[in-house]
Amino acid sequence: MSTAVSPLAPKSIPALPPIAGVRMATAEAGIRYAGRTDVLLAVFEPGTAVAGVFTRSRCPSAPVEWCRERLAGGSIRALVVNSGNANAFTGATGRQATKLTAELAARSLGCSESEIFLASTGVIGEPLDASKFGPVMDRLAADGEEGAWEAAARAIMTTDTFPKLATRTARIGDATVTINGIAKGAGMIAPDMATMLSFIATDAAIAPTALQAVLSDAVERSFNCVTIDGDTSTSDTLLAFATGKAVNEIENASDPALDGFKAAFEDLLIELAQLVARDGEGARKFVTVEVEGAESDLSARKIALSIANSPLVKTAIAGEDANWGRVVMAVGKAGEPADRDLLTIRFGDVRVAHLGARDPDYDEAVASAYMKNEEITVAVELGLGTGKARVWTCDLTEGYIAINADYRS
Amino acid sequence: MSTAVSPLAPKSIPALPPIAGVRMATAEAGIRYAGRTDVLLAVFEPGTAVAGVFTRSRCPSAPVEWCRERLAGGSIRALVVNSGNANAFTGATGRQATKLTAELAARSLGCSESEIFLASTGVIGEPLDASKFGPVMDRLAADGEEGAWEAAARAIMTTDTFPKLATRTARIGDATVTINGIAKGAGMIAPDMATMLSFIATDAAIAPTALQAVLSDAVERSFNCVTIDGDTSTSDTLLAFATGKAVNEIENASDPALDGFKAAFEDLLIELAQLVARDGEGARKFVTVEVEGAESDLSARKIALSIANSPLVKTAIAGEDANWGRVVMAVGKAGEPADRDLLTIRFGDVRVAHLGARDPDYDEAVASAYMKNEEITVAVELGLGTGKARVWTCDLTEGYIAINADYRS
Repeated sequence: MSTAVSPLAPKSIPALPPIAGVRMATAEAGIRYAGRTDVLLAVFEPGTAVAGVFTRSRCPSAPVEWCRERLAGGSIRALVVNSGNANAFTGATGRQATKLTAELAARSLGCSESEIFLASTGVIGEPLDASKFGPVMDRLAADGEEGAWEAAARAIMTTDTFPKLATRTARIGDATVTINGIAKGAGMIAPDMATMLSFIATDAAIAPTALQAVLSDAVERSFNCVTIDGDTSTSDTLLAFATGKAVNEIENASDPALDGFKAAFEDLLIELAQLVARDGEGARKFVTVEVEGAESDLSARKIALSIANSPLVKTAIAGEDANWGRVVMAVGKAGEPADRDLLTIRFGDVRVAHLGARDPDYDEAVASAYMKNEEITVAVELGLGTGKARVWTCDLTEGYIAINADYRS
Repeated sequence: MSTAVSPLAPKSIPALPPIAGVRMATAEAGIRYAGRTDVLLAVFEPGTAVAGVFTRSRCPSAPVEWCRERLAGGSIRALVVNSGNANAFTGATGRQATKLTAELAARSLGCSESEIFLASTGVIGEPLDASKFGPVMDRLAADGEEGAWEAAARAIMTTDTFPKLATRTARIGDATVTINGIAKGAGMIAPDMATMLSFIATDAAIAPTALQAVLSDAVERSFNCVTIDGDTSTSDTLLAFATGKAVNEIENASDPALDGFKAAFEDLLIELAQLVARDGEGARKFVTVEVEGAESDLSARKIALSIANSPLVKTAIAGEDANWGRVVMAVGKAGEPADRDLLTIRFGDVRVAHLGARDPDYDEAVASAYMKNEEITVAVELGLGTGKARVWTCDLTEGYIAINADYRS
């Protein structure tokens, strides 16, 4: 595991306020790591609503399947997250491990297994010894604190170089509600792929179906707009919890009273998604790709992701090369409607290509100076319609190769 | 440009026999490089059939558009290829450059522009000064030789580290025909992306529509099964020529007399496609990905390409790590039908995962020993149907980053 903090990390870690109805505790269960916490128990007061989105992988982890099966219930009493072992591609053993983990938590809390949610991140294909949670579960259940957000964010890290936390407030009617979120990102535990986990809690009172609608909508413009390398984990899990301690429940996602909440919720998800990109393996530059003028928003996002996932675009940015030819290539390969002779491309404010050819005023020195920035924006104007999208990624450096080509330890 | 020859290069360059009806010559037009040939003129006897397949990029180069427009004619008198400038994303200037190049060749040869085909590879977005072909064109037209295949393969190289040539013979009825091919691959000229060009000539007599059918079919199992980094050039061009000097013409691609020819043609394309992967930027290992048991051949190819394009799989292979977890990930992200609990994965003959979990007999030492080979096979059995596919790629190393993150010179 790398110990150097990403140069793109925020200058400070935000202190998150408590969320009424959520208590958290962490422990060292010794799943894989020594000398650090690797298990998180979050306990929610009865009546807490839950919503979730998961990896689209056809080969999901056992905890992803566990959560999917219990999401219809709409309520949650506890979340158990471990790092060090993803419990993915573990067959029947993996299903047994999820069941045992849920049993242990349910017993300690005196609730039903059906209200326990699970997430795991770490080594793939190795059996998860869930019995290791036994000796710590009672204490985790007893020790939970409302303000333990940073400890929670640290316990779920794998090769993340910094903990990822964000908070927002919003008005619902006369009440102020709080939204807290944590995430872990593109870390690597040999022999494993990156896993994105994120957990969002609010003291707002929102019915499960409404919370699911808010989450599913916001994720399209936040976590689904971030990419490190185009690879999709077996374990990606994003759960949202509404404890309902602050205000009266809102049943319907289209209730105008939720408008401010929705905006704050999406903004928080965007911040967390950007933090994931800022901690991409080997990242030295944070990259925003903006596409406008596409035939639809969906088309714009496909083109933006084609640019953001292109190894050639990402290596050019690592090399501080204003290589717009590769951006043209990535637009062309996306397979979406595009007219070469209408394309305009900018790096930051520098227009490098216009109407299908190099900008007549292109100045290599100006463009090269811009590329030395730590934050780079690549903007493409397609000139076809009103569809637009914005995605975030990082550059592709030797560091990515070094991290991912390491032998398993 | 790199000068070290890829460790995966073949031990020797094959000597190609002449193809009756094809004469080739090369020259130094000074497009970009100094001290090397950068233009190829191939002249075909009247009546030569032509077929072609091109990049699927929505932003194709000017020569690609030129060739597409002329392919319906079915006949070719000359092919002009230059390296050093791709004539891509060059707007109206680019179209003028293609027209001037064709005019110069047509004048020297006394034929129609409509029978001149063009290909360019190199810098993108810079105007191609086609007038530089003027001083050399008459000599190229006069000097053509039937056996100049290696010189031709060298003139079209960019950062290829070795010329790529292959030859086959086949029986058509009582006659023996020859098929020669050259290709250039994943080379890089800052600020450009890789371009794949390949040209295949035979003395067989095959009508243009039949030749096109043979080509389009064979390309699916050869060049469309090779990937370096998933990025698609603006300029990919594969043209096939049949001079008809050896035998009577075959009109129909389904004529059984063509069976042997088709097999030899596809085999030659596979060899060239593999040579391209062997010269992938920074490549140290040649990788074959085999997928069986998919619901269809198309589904199998999508899964195979998902594996072959995964940066995490490719870096693991670079690190000689038998990281089957990343193969599971790549299967899962392909979006094709797959059942995790039926998956079997092998590295070479080493079964590492079976029926959705680590193989009970898995031996890390045996798997690690296999991964030290220069040629690696990753085989996935999905257990769903009879669909299968095989694709070729290379590993992803620091060398790829170093080559592609270089500043433009």
